[in-house]
Amino acid sequence: MSDLLTIADKTYQSRLIIGTGKYKDFNETRDAIETSGAEMVTVAIRRTNIGQNADEENLLDYIPPEKYTILPNTAGCYTAEEAVRCCKLARELLDGHDLVKLEVLGDQKTLYPNIPHTLKAAQALVDDGFKVMVYTNDDPIVAKELEAMGCVAVMPLGSLIGSGLGILNPHYIQLIKEDANVPIIVDAGVGTASDAAFAMELGCDGVLLNSAIAHAGNPVLMASAMRKAIEAGRESFLAGRMPRKAYASASSPLEGISR
Amino acid sequence: MSDLLTIADKTYQSRLIIGTGKYKDFNETRDAIETSGAEMVTVAIRRTNIGQNADEENLLDYIPPEKYTILPNTAGCYTAEEAVRCCKLARELLDGHDLVKLEVLGDQKTLYPNIPHTLKAAQALVDDGFKVMVYTNDDPIVAKELEAMGCVAVMPLGSLIGSGLGILNPHYIQLIKEDANVPIIVDAGVGTASDAAFAMELGCDGVLLNSAIAHAGNPVLMASAMRKAIEAGRESFLAGRMPRKAYASASSPLEGISR
Amino acid sequence: MSDLLTIADKTYQSRLIIGTGKYKDFNETRDAIETSGAEMVTVAIRRTNIGQNADEENLLDYIPPEKYTILPNTAGCYTAEEAVRCCKLARELLDGHDLVKLEVLGDQKTLYPNIPHTLKAAQALVDDGFKVMVYTNDDPIVAKELEAMGCVAVMPLGSLIGSGLGILNPHYIQLIKEDANVPIIVDAGVGTASDAAFAMELGCDGVLLNSAIAHAGNPVLMASAMRKAIEAGRESFLAGRMPRKAYASASSPLEGISR
Amino acid sequence: MSDLLTIADKTYQSRLIIGTGKYKDFNETRDAIETSGAEMVTVAIRRTNIGQNADEENLLDYIPPEKYTILPNTAGCYTAEEAVRCCKLARELLDGHDLVKLEVLGDQKTLYPNIPHTLKAAQALVDDGFKVMVYTNDDPIVAKELEAMGCVAVMPLGSLIGSGLGILNPHYIQLIKEDANVPIIVDAGVGTASDAAFAMELGCDGVLLNSAIAHAGNPVLMASAMRKAIEAGRESFLAGRMPRKAYASASSPLEGISR
Repeated sequence: MSDLLTIADKTYQSRLIIGTGKYKDFNETRDAIETSGAEMVTVAIRRTNIGQNADEENLLDYIPPEKYTILPNTAGCYTAEEAVRCCKLARELLDGHDLVKLEVLGDQKTLYPNIPHTLKAAQALVDDGFKVMVYTNDDPIVAKELEAMGCVAVMPLGSLIGSGLGILNPHYIQLIKEDANVPIIVDAGVGTASDAAFAMELGCDGVLLNSAIAHAGNPVLMASAMRKAIEAGRESFLAGRMPRKAYASASSPLEGISR
Repeated sequence: MSDLLTIADKTYQSRLIIGTGKYKDFNETRDAIETSGAEMVTVAIRRTNIGQNADEENLLDYIPPEKYTILPNTAGCYTAEEAVRCCKLARELLDGHDLVKLEVLGDQKTLYPNIPHTLKAAQALVDDGFKVMVYTNDDPIVAKELEAMGCVAVMPLGSLIGSGLGILNPHYIQLIKEDANVPIIVDAGVGTASDAAFAMELGCDGVLLNSAIAHAGNPVLMASAMRKAIEAGRESFLAGRMPRKAYASASSPLEGISR
Repeated sequence: MSDLLTIADKTYQSRLIIGTGKYKDFNETRDAIETSGAEMVTVAIRRTNIGQNADEENLLDYIPPEKYTILPNTAGCYTAEEAVRCCKLARELLDGHDLVKLEVLGDQKTLYPNIPHTLKAAQALVDDGFKVMVYTNDDPIVAKELEAMGCVAVMPLGSLIGSGLGILNPHYIQLIKEDANVPIIVDAGVGTASDAAFAMELGCDGVLLNSAIAHAGNPVLMASAMRKAIEAGRESFLAGRMPRKAYASASSPLEGISR
Repeated sequence: MSDLLTIADKTYQSRLIIGTGKYKDFNETRDAIETSGAEMVTVAIRRTNIGQNADEENLLDYIPPEKYTILPNTAGCYTAEEAVRCCKLARELLDGHDLVKLEVLGDQKTLYPNIPHTLKAAQALVDDGFKVMVYTNDDPIVAKELEAMGCVAVMPLGSLIGSGLGILNPHYIQLIKEDANVPIIVDAGVGTASDAAFAMELGCDGVLLNSAIAHAGNPVLMASAMRKAIEAGRESFLAGRMPRKAYASASSPLEGISR
């Protein structure tokens, strides 16, 4: 079955996008990413050396851009200006690479996105020719606005970054997906394999995660779990699940159940 | 990684047990089961021809006992006596095969198990030399009693048979698993891939399902989803999930969250 | 509006039944119970002095039987025999009082009920002329059997005794209520006011609780909260809630929402 | 116990704010509001006659401003400009009354708020001397910004207007409340009494609702339920709930439970 994900005119077999931070070392990063089957990996430009510091180990020696789509991200930016500057630095470091993941955070406590700054930065980046995948909250109106602006993927949070609380509000994620014409990728919150499968069953086009693998007891084994979970959730969505019923003999779905 | 499931001294690679009912025809049954990777399949003796009726198609021509462990079940029995009789018939039809799945139902509306009759039939079957895998509710005291009696696997419901409502009470399933010395297999209720993965993440040893595949829009594709979901959930459990936190900067898991 | 609860031919304005254990002292017990508006209070015969020990304070001096219906309970009993003996002692101490709450527990860790012993004790007590209100799990088949046996009220757990986890499986509580001809009273698990209101909105006839009040920071204020919550939940049930919709403009309830 | 809600320097005994739309007629509106105990009622200026049309019935003849704090709202406005204009009209109609509820909606399908327009309108109204209670989503960063701007109350949605789905994401509501210095009032989504109690147990300062009463089978009885539910939830919050435990014998809260 051919079921490819297309982002900014490039196609991917895998619907899992993996972060590169929080691992023990670059060897573990590489092993986990290889096992996950991910074809796109995201890199925090402010925290990870991809050539800024000539003296340090370079992530790209472990995760080669010939093999993976590198997705520079603006983690650690709290204003539109910082985020835009960060993307420009990435484009320079990566020889004109224009696919970026924009994230503008609201505060250090929650790492919840700052939506007004996100909107502003997204517009500036699109105007400047970037292909913007944008981290956002689960607001369906904002999601439409980001799509209308020209972002190439909209990435609502499942729950807070680093929380592992799963998809706290599947209803809004579904509302976003229902009306979207660009890929919707759940970004942040996935803590375990069933969370990832569930995100895909909601109809989302992909999942981006980092801590769930990097902070698992065994990151490489969790990477394998996530690969399978994403595929399982996608196939389950495409297959079409059985109807829910209050009990098997009920003639209509969920008749008689109150909540 | 070697991670085998052992039931009644036989080992299995797959932790997925599949029902054979509710398919369009035996070809679909076979295709779904092959795709699922299941090594054990369960057969309702009262509903499926495995040789009782010489004139009809025989399931075993599609699902050969040389390849699969056949698990005769007592679906449709509402008393201990009927269920015991049904198991004896199966043993006869299958030349002394003594592994059975006992299920004694409470009523036709809910298909919830009748626990007093289940306990009585389980005792009679164990005494008669059967190896009993037993369908039960999510009562941890009853689960211990069934184990103490000598049942080879205890199979609590996730939710009602045919409902697809998932694992309604994960807390009790965990209590059952915490104290168990025999395999705990979630039986009934799984509706979709994330449900199956979640059951495995609770630490369960396997999942038995039927409608989730047979009543999916595309049963064979759902069988593939379930195979991957079971593996994903198992690996996720073995890997050890990241801690949940109210937010990433919280110093202890879930500090500050109320429910 | 007249909306009375009838148990064993006696009517009650209040649908809240309160335990008498776990308070700082009998003064606090009395203050909480008075504030709660409860007309029936339950007493653990094995733990509370209602006259067994002439030298100790007697609960009945604080909670007079002329004012409250005293419901002796068998907390701390782990076999049918102990529980039956305990009820007989209570009947003797209370001059022939025959209304009892039967609870037979499965183990000290979970305090989950032992259903086979509960069934046995219930039958013995009914045969001996007791009016039995019976603590049980959320098994709808067992609930019907206890009703058929002649129990005057069936009392399924919301969650484990002392856990405060609320109603873990509202679906099964509803199944029990749907088919019941005796009062269904949620017993155990209610932790906070919204849990109590929710139990009533499921259609239950009452709630029995103890720790939620006794272990609150301010037990008397929580008693007031519970009184109002029970009334709120009951009125809400009788009023008939608005339909749930995925969004206001959806033409049918919950169209378009996946879970 | 004195426990008053203060909004814009005025104190209220009741923490329930009621909408005036969707009732059969103004008599039902009045009866429900009287029963609810609400002291503040909100009026959609675009839909309800409070004097704009001299020929029609005037709501204020039923809900007199001498008795109730009238809270004009901008329901039906989809841009900042419309909303600001609507507030000015209300101020004129109500002789300089400057307390308003701002709501700017995103689309007709979901009625989800438009946050960029809400921020813009809130700023304009505050600058113009209005006391602004503001309907918003459950974004904690936006909530802080609205507070910083000078809004007198922040009113996050529990779920979509008219959905009755309850508090879909209690976690974010708690994050908002944790950092707030103005009243946080859950607005939209409450469907039943236990939802209202739960909102208060999260620590919120009040609840605004309309459909839950107006679309109940018996609106006046539901109004009574809501009054009690709000009080129950508030008292429960102030009393301090018992700790949750996986089982009563667990030595620490929730040890051993996985989710």
